[in-house]
Amino acid sequence: MESVTVATHRGLNEITDAVARVVDAARVREGLCTVFIRHTSASLVIQENADPAVRRDLEAFFSRLVADGDPLFTHVTEGPDDMPSHVKAALTRTSEQIPIVDGRLGLGTWQGLYVWEHRSAPHRRTVLVHVAGE
Amino acid sequence: MESVTVATHRGLNEITDAVARVVDAARVREGLCTVFIRHTSASLVIQENADPAVRRDLEAFFSRLVADGDPLFTHVTEGPDDMPSHVKAALTRTSEQIPIVDGRLGLGTWQGLYVWEHRSAPHRRTVLVHVAGE
Amino acid sequence: MESVTVATHRGLNEITDAVARVVDAARVREGLCTVFIRHTSASLVIQENADPAVRRDLEAFFSRLVADGDPLFTHVTEGPDDMPSHVKAALTRTSEQIPIVDGRLGLGTWQGLYVWEHRSAPHRRTVLVHVAGE
Repeated sequence: MESVTVATHRGLNEITDAVARVVDAARVREGLCTVFIRHTSASLVIQENADPAVRRDLEAFFSRLVADGDPLFTHVTEGPDDMPSHVKAALTRTSEQIPIVDGRLGLGTWQGLYVWEHRSAPHRRTVLVHVAGE
Repeated sequence: MESVTVATHRGLNEITDAVARVVDAARVREGLCTVFIRHTSASLVIQENADPAVRRDLEAFFSRLVADGDPLFTHVTEGPDDMPSHVKAALTRTSEQIPIVDGRLGLGTWQGLYVWEHRSAPHRRTVLVHVAGE
Repeated sequence: MESVTVATHRGLNEITDAVARVVDAARVREGLCTVFIRHTSASLVIQENADPAVRRDLEAFFSRLVADGDPLFTHVTEGPDDMPSHVKAALTRTSEQIPIVDGRLGLGTWQGLYVWEHRSAPHRRTVLVHVAGE
């Protein structure tokens, strides 16, 4: 089990390379890589790693769907972006599994793994990376 | 593999302790705990376990986003809350992985694991818990 | 690790039987089956396999929530249904774990596994299936 710390800003922060390094070091030929984020106001997502507009549009859509300061929310002491962050985390992923094929992450050509920071302020986030296989 | 039965009411029902007991009994020092819910109108989510308002706001947001009795829905024979339940399950999780670190669930400080009951009536839900590791 | 190719049309395309065949061939009595889709404009979901109206309503809800041609989106060169596809994939799943119980997928009575095609045109999608256990 490895722990990876990520400095984030609001939006999608790529961690594919950091996770790939853990897989390389584990010298597993075929197996599974499990990634787990230890937070509830940031989350994981696997998305397109080509056009950066995809990540901007994802952030724009989610921030329109779950608006900062929505008067529906009663959990407001940590700021107008806190409760929306929890909702966005519920809508995306806390854990993600990626198969290991021929010793490498078996991602599709256009897939990257991201920590999605939902808070407005930069954060340091911790991700656990577990590798199993042979 | 252990099967855990949970008595639920609409909203988030914590199962962290029940799953932690399965992990304790397995005596695995480092590995993975996989939780799977065998239903499509209730789901899993990992969320903040501190302020109960977070869970209430999550339920309020999802129930506004996917309204009971929405005239869009044609699958209505099981009641106005049934099809919204399927949508909410699609928006959250059926399976969740939690790393096991030093013999315990490697959750972050503020993370708890919940069965999210989407139906209005109380239910009994079955969750499978699988532990792997050494 | 097996690779399964699926011919899809927009909406939910069931792959339960194809994945069950991989599990049968692996002759694992108790363990985990991990399914991973190598795309970011199609996704995985476990949903009700009884009334087909559930799948139609899911598609209708998601397509209303994330509308083709929404002027919010700037990533539009691949067509009005491309960016909505990425959002819908972010809202559902890229990987899914299903416990193996007594040599079979431990799905609930009403659960089926689906590739959710979000693009309007038919596609061929690749899913990786990993089986672990004893």
